[in-house]
Amino acid sequence: MVNESKEKVCLIGSGNWGSAIAKIVGRNVTKHDNYDSEVRMWVYEEIVNGQRLTDLINTQHENVKYLPNVKLPENVVAVPDLLQTVEDATLLVFVIPHQFVKGVCEQLKGKLHSDARAISLIKGVDVSKGGIHLISDLIKENLDIDVSVLMGANIASEVAMENFCESTIGCTNMKNGEAFHKALHSPYFRVAIVDDVAGVELCGALKNVIAIGAGIVDGLKMGENTKAAIIRIGIMEMKKFSQTFYKGVKDETYMESCGVADVITTCFGGRNRRVAEAHVVTGKSFETLEKEMLNGQKLQGTLTAKEVNEILKGRNMVNDFPFFTAVYRVCYEGLPAQELVDNI
Amino acid sequence: MVNESKEKVCLIGSGNWGSAIAKIVGRNVTKHDNYDSEVRMWVYEEIVNGQRLTDLINTQHENVKYLPNVKLPENVVAVPDLLQTVEDATLLVFVIPHQFVKGVCEQLKGKLHSDARAISLIKGVDVSKGGIHLISDLIKENLDIDVSVLMGANIASEVAMENFCESTIGCTNMKNGEAFHKALHSPYFRVAIVDDVAGVELCGALKNVIAIGAGIVDGLKMGENTKAAIIRIGIMEMKKFSQTFYKGVKDETYMESCGVADVITTCFGGRNRRVAEAHVVTGKSFETLEKEMLNGQKLQGTLTAKEVNEILKGRNMVNDFPFFTAVYRVCYEGLPAQELVDNI
Repeated sequence: MVNESKEKVCLIGSGNWGSAIAKIVGRNVTKHDNYDSEVRMWVYEEIVNGQRLTDLINTQHENVKYLPNVKLPENVVAVPDLLQTVEDATLLVFVIPHQFVKGVCEQLKGKLHSDARAISLIKGVDVSKGGIHLISDLIKENLDIDVSVLMGANIASEVAMENFCESTIGCTNMKNGEAFHKALHSPYFRVAIVDDVAGVELCGALKNVIAIGAGIVDGLKMGENTKAAIIRIGIMEMKKFSQTFYKGVKDETYMESCGVADVITTCFGGRNRRVAEAHVVTGKSFETLEKEMLNGQKLQGTLTAKEVNEILKGRNMVNDFPFFTAVYRVCYEGLPAQELVDNI
Repeated sequence: MVNESKEKVCLIGSGNWGSAIAKIVGRNVTKHDNYDSEVRMWVYEEIVNGQRLTDLINTQHENVKYLPNVKLPENVVAVPDLLQTVEDATLLVFVIPHQFVKGVCEQLKGKLHSDARAISLIKGVDVSKGGIHLISDLIKENLDIDVSVLMGANIASEVAMENFCESTIGCTNMKNGEAFHKALHSPYFRVAIVDDVAGVELCGALKNVIAIGAGIVDGLKMGENTKAAIIRIGIMEMKKFSQTFYKGVKDETYMESCGVADVITTCFGGRNRRVAEAHVVTGKSFETLEKEMLNGQKLQGTLTAKEVNEILKGRNMVNDFPFFTAVYRVCYEGLPAQELVDNI
């Protein structure tokens, strides 16, 4: 029986990031009296080694397919049915690939607890209607609930190993931000809260454009000074872009984990940096390298650079964002990589 | 004959950083009508391959000892005599090792042009009297002139190669900042000006403490998330320290090249990071590793961590700076490196 006054957390998604987060949330809810101790996790059912993935997770307490060798708390329960997952849930953690958000919201419409609030851990933006739309706005518009976001320097495999890191919740309603903070913060996963959804969420998307720039200067072997300059200029344009097109984006957000820290991890590791470096070294197109190097995955940085450029063109602001524009031109207009820094 | 209304730049120092800067200044002064085209550079005389270093520089236009294979403009003139170097100079660029600053100032006292102003490119702080003293203050107090500073992600060899980078001038008098900007800014060495001497200058010293922390987590192989978190936390404590102990330190300074960019280069390259990593991997003391790895050079990060700790202890503020304190304890009190992140 669910105590009506308790918060009940569920996870919508169970990939490697979702499973790493499930480990944290599963532990946290047992520490707070006013949190229901069961955490349901929606798993898109599939057969793994002849068994249902949900059965495997619920008996072995391990997501053997997407986060192998990491034990999940036993109070995390894999559920194949979406509506059963969200039943009685007051705190919904969205951690699915962004292309599935709309379909999931369609199914959830009108089916949520009256006190339901959401947090999106989905990095990236929705570009399906043209222009950039925040995933948090997509969820909010479809479900008519308050939506916070969580972003940061959080490579899932390292979080699963319990290596110390930080993360940032962006919220509009501080009480909701704090309710999610209780479910997500831990000694090894240190979460800060800022009153800024758009600023935090856009960091998760725009950082990939910066990483393309960083990969280009890596490929050119221009050294540490140049790379640090590119990263700094990229952060400044990310901030300017967000503050130009969204209200209430705070300067301080960029000094949080979602800002400077996530940009650093993305510019020193990650596939956007890697493919951009290969573009310079091999001379192959981004399209070709995407196919050769990414095993079916899409390169977020080039796509985001394109969407950003369309917005800037539409507002006649291309020259106000020379770095974003130069990255776009290297990706799509054949600007030689060597000319990147001359254009910023 | 010196035109009295013209600015005349001289360089006090001619190591690899001084020589890289001489290349920039030498070119820049010829582009501005109100700058004298001669740039004197003080060279501590020594014999190289049987010849005077000053003669070698003035005939070959190359600092064959400290920045070989890089041509200097012919209007840069090496001068072995300090007073002759500063004769008629209105803009003095200090770029000598910090331990020589006092001695040089002693010699310059009362000998400068009435309109002389200085800029310090010297990274580090003076700790000779106990406590932390800015090099810019040391120059100012000794010579009674206005002193700006220049710091940034500026590895000298890369600047000498003309690889694109950025730098930051911190000044109290904007006119003086702009006078130095004309001498120092170039398309490949992009200089910003901020109205904040102490904030900019302290970045150049405190970044080395952050690099010790970064090297420790590198040694522990804690991954990218942890390293990014350490860098972010380090920047925040650097800012807090500077704002606690100096007036007028600006938030924006930390998003300039002297802040986030220089911290990145120092935490991914540089000897402080390298020695700290070796400390964790080999278990040897910092003192031993300094001797083994640095060929007579001193490790700035550990020294600065000690000075910072003494200041914090004196004010009973050790717990307000958990990262700086943990780095100090790993360096000097045998705190196991593994416990660094538990203490921040």
